[in-house]
Amino acid sequence: MKTIYFVTNNMGKVREAKALLEKLGIDAQQLAYEYPELQSDDLEEIAKYGAKHAAMHLKKPVIVEDAGLFISALNGFPGPYSSFTFKRIGNEGILKLMRDVKDRKAQFRSVVGYCAPGKETITFSGAVEGEISHEPRGRSGFGYDPIFLYGDRTFAQMSTEKKNEVSHRCIALRRFAEWLQKNNE
Amino acid sequence: MKTIYFVTNNMGKVREAKALLEKLGIDAQQLAYEYPELQSDDLEEIAKYGAKHAAMHLKKPVIVEDAGLFISALNGFPGPYSSFTFKRIGNEGILKLMRDVKDRKAQFRSVVGYCAPGKETITFSGAVEGEISHEPRGRSGFGYDPIFLYGDRTFAQMSTEKKNEVSHRCIALRRFAEWLQKNNE
Repeated sequence: MKTIYFVTNNMGKVREAKALLEKLGIDAQQLAYEYPELQSDDLEEIAKYGAKHAAMHLKKPVIVEDAGLFISALNGFPGPYSSFTFKRIGNEGILKLMRDVKDRKAQFRSVVGYCAPGKETITFSGAVEGEISHEPRGRSGFGYDPIFLYGDRTFAQMSTEKKNEVSHRCIALRRFAEWLQKNNE
Repeated sequence: MKTIYFVTNNMGKVREAKALLEKLGIDAQQLAYEYPELQSDDLEEIAKYGAKHAAMHLKKPVIVEDAGLFISALNGFPGPYSSFTFKRIGNEGILKLMRDVKDRKAQFRSVVGYCAPGKETITFSGAVEGEISHEPRGRSGFGYDPIFLYGDRTFAQMSTEKKNEVSHRCIALRRFAEWLQKNNE
């Protein structure tokens, strides 16, 4: 089984990635290291920069993952700053911004950046379309999951397994795993 | 007259800085260069990283400035991501988040980072206390100025000159100018 290092402090992400990658023959080990995160509107740029930095510093093949919730009616807010925004105003703040807003369309996007020391970063992306609910529902997952409606349930009302079948992060991770197997790195 | 290079794309900031620094014997030239901006809760860290990078790359003594609006009732939101948040949800979004919120206290903070090639970055900070208004007022300034109440007027209802007497950015720039004169760099 191949081992890669997932550089993140987010245990929710690690849980999801481990469950998925294991089935694809990849052992994902968490490495808690604070790589510099760029301010950018572009998740790909953030993941590229972070993976390159972490691989160089840790001297291991690493993946980093950057994700964001992009709400149509809010011009893509909170986007790449989803994590910061969540810590400050939470789901309550997002629901307040969406009060009386008819267009509830939203997209979760994820970019996985893979980098081995001395090589270029390769990125893999995934997205899932949904809607912002009118109130939080469910207790599993993390972050914006309770207000992200996928069909008639929020991500927080789905098991990790069900969420992994459709989520932005798992689409990106699956693309990465397929590439890794093909390229036998 | 000493010349320093203000690395920014924000013409509003350049206007304010030029007016202030000229009086203090410093000629501030704008340089439009996109230095990497860190994602961090700490303006000082962002300015330090940016100034160092820009000085190395441009081979000139530079200043960069990073500012943010920190709203008490929103746990410091939008803080270091003020510029992104403004582009996405604007003053309208902030006022919506502040609807029915009694505590209107807010602070504008600024950090100026100065770096000469091969040297360490030095930072200078400034802050101004105010309140979030209930509706936008005034047309001068930029960004959150129309909703930032200083006394009974918003920053956007004040002339550049008046705003420069009290603003976060000008406190930080004045501290920088004093240091530069003393250290005769």
